[in-house]
Amino acid sequence: MSLARLWESLLPIGRDDPAGGYRRYAFTEAELACRSWFRAAAAERGLDVSADRDANLWAWWDPPGAARRTGAIVTGSHLDSVPDGGAFDGPLGVASGFAAIDLLRDRGRVPASPIGVTAFCEEEGARFGLACLGSRLLTGTVDPGTARALRDGAGVSLAEAMAAAGYDPALIGPDEDLLGGIAAFVELHVEQGRALADPPGAALGVAAGIWPHGRWRFDFTGRADHAGTARLADRQDPMLPFAVTALAARECAARLGTLATFGKIVADPGGVNAISSSVRAWLDARAPDQAGLDQTVATIRAAAERAARDHDVTVGVRVESVTPPVNFDPELRDRIVAVLAAAGIDAPVLPTGAGHDAGVLAARLPTAMLFVRNPTGVSHAPAERAEPADCELGVTALAAVLEDLACR
Amino acid sequence: MSLARLWESLLPIGRDDPAGGYRRYAFTEAELACRSWFRAAAAERGLDVSADRDANLWAWWDPPGAARRTGAIVTGSHLDSVPDGGAFDGPLGVASGFAAIDLLRDRGRVPASPIGVTAFCEEEGARFGLACLGSRLLTGTVDPGTARALRDGAGVSLAEAMAAAGYDPALIGPDEDLLGGIAAFVELHVEQGRALADPPGAALGVAAGIWPHGRWRFDFTGRADHAGTARLADRQDPMLPFAVTALAARECAARLGTLATFGKIVADPGGVNAISSSVRAWLDARAPDQAGLDQTVATIRAAAERAARDHDVTVGVRVESVTPPVNFDPELRDRIVAVLAAAGIDAPVLPTGAGHDAGVLAARLPTAMLFVRNPTGVSHAPAERAEPADCELGVTALAAVLEDLACR
Repeated sequence: MSLARLWESLLPIGRDDPAGGYRRYAFTEAELACRSWFRAAAAERGLDVSADRDANLWAWWDPPGAARRTGAIVTGSHLDSVPDGGAFDGPLGVASGFAAIDLLRDRGRVPASPIGVTAFCEEEGARFGLACLGSRLLTGTVDPGTARALRDGAGVSLAEAMAAAGYDPALIGPDEDLLGGIAAFVELHVEQGRALADPPGAALGVAAGIWPHGRWRFDFTGRADHAGTARLADRQDPMLPFAVTALAARECAARLGTLATFGKIVADPGGVNAISSSVRAWLDARAPDQAGLDQTVATIRAAAERAARDHDVTVGVRVESVTPPVNFDPELRDRIVAVLAAAGIDAPVLPTGAGHDAGVLAARLPTAMLFVRNPTGVSHAPAERAEPADCELGVTALAAVLEDLACR
Repeated sequence: MSLARLWESLLPIGRDDPAGGYRRYAFTEAELACRSWFRAAAAERGLDVSADRDANLWAWWDPPGAARRTGAIVTGSHLDSVPDGGAFDGPLGVASGFAAIDLLRDRGRVPASPIGVTAFCEEEGARFGLACLGSRLLTGTVDPGTARALRDGAGVSLAEAMAAAGYDPALIGPDEDLLGGIAAFVELHVEQGRALADPPGAALGVAAGIWPHGRWRFDFTGRADHAGTARLADRQDPMLPFAVTALAARECAARLGTLATFGKIVADPGGVNAISSSVRAWLDARAPDQAGLDQTVATIRAAAERAARDHDVTVGVRVESVTPPVNFDPELRDRIVAVLAAAGIDAPVLPTGAGHDAGVLAARLPTAMLFVRNPTGVSHAPAERAEPADCELGVTALAAVLEDLACR
């Protein structure tokens, strides 16, 4: 099968043995190798391949004799990963796009509208801190100057990283010509929880929408001191209100039916025998609706402020990003469910807490998502999984959708 | 005054403006500049200066016509710092040693026994992780092979760092000749809490002993997952039992009258939208006696294990170092108190929770410590302070002690 072959050739790139996690950060050697893989896959299929001004990749199967690229149906996802991420989050959607084209061609189908496969840049925000950077730039929802100045952990700016990889950072920004030529975007993605794995279960799902979510940085500022000599009563130790806040976040999320996580923390100066001068910690919060998200963040913030006062520490809370709820196009969603049902595929409609490029594009285009079952329910980690048979069914489903939308 | 001049010339070295904290890590450019300062101060005074096999520095004022260096009285401390440390911890004792010699010479005193000023290497353990490395090597309480293999955060070994700085790492180890020639060691040090600052207060103190203390690494291991999709019930988030443990440590220390601090933490993979796969955190614990320390660590460990179970996470606890209680030589201590009283200086006897080279040497030699009042009570941080008048009194006291011990 073409998916298996595509998958095998991508699998070793950027994998950190022996843990097996992926480190494919935008414009690093591993991610540039993923880009070469994309170009090779497109070339092998005779597709017209190009990068847009925002370093997103595009491969086109154009209708015979078409003079302009309008009314295109695009599928795809992203190739970058979180630190020590899984193999499927992103790449499965890109590889499935190429494999779906192979399937349509095997059946002798010819597109009436252009069919595109895309790989968006820096979807995870793992290098420059802003998720969905490529699709945000393309749709104009992030300022190009702001984006160019983003820096990675080593202090390298996006502009510097792009230039070093052969992309011109002066060009980044919205591309209305490209967007205007697209009639619909369908992103296939591995499911990232146990929504399809738990009974009754299904190999595929169709997205209802994306929970509103965001990132908040909590800066607890105390006073550095000697851990062996400062009396407890004299201390202003920011680690303690952080600890209270991390526990309050879990308690609040459980009570409200939302999600709240602290997964990144930096304690300064970080000496074993030093009381911290500051603890910075990042809250990731998500909820079924905006009110739930607001209440979650407000509750955690209030707990942090109370705990900070108790420990004679100050706390500042800064929003780093907020993504409002996304409801995918209901008409496109219903059409996809009907196409799959006609192909004998039962795909329940379900929401997700994860952000996606499809969520960014949904503000501009009819957009939909297909989910492939994840038996572990784990994502953003090496244990992330999808069974080969489920992945093949995903290609079948994607091909059916592309045929319906582009091959009439 | 000579102390002020010595101090002014040392103050700018390794200071990180604008925060004002010091970063004088063993064998780095800043610390090598501190060594040059030591050699210049010795040369200016006509003292015989040398480094021992463990890269500790020594400056000697020998009695006229002495053939061998025996029965020496040594003072000094260290020149390295913790990350963003204060100006006084270490350097005050070294500079005061030189200034005390100046004072004795001004008064026309001549030593009957050699008087030494020393600067021990890597006292803070800030670069290679093992506190009092220089004095431990000198006294044979750390294996040279183990020491050579210690690595800093960038992966550079002690052996490599020594060689790059012009010291031969093959030579490190105990030096019985040097140790055998020393009759007593008196370390002057800035006080690191508010013991002298709070009423009734005193400019100087004499050490009773050092609390037993140690470092324990807690490894909480959970399962990395996506912060936006993993249900709370499916999570194994190691950040939560860490938070419980940090709060339990403070609660336990307050109850038992001990000290317990988590100042260093590393969460992996460290992505904002990732549930941590592991959280490593280091406990610094200290107590007035060994039983109190054992109880403190056992209580915190039990809390960690309980919290880990609650969150379906595992925890491993590993001792990184333990230092038993030190009781300084009572005879030397009483003699110093009497000398100071005769000089009109009231110096209370007090314990400390901080480790010192004097604590390492105490196992081999009659050893004592003088503390200079710290009005902020802060140490290992830029706010660490000692008033000029108190520092001058420290030099006066140290000169009186050296005169009593070496100039009979």
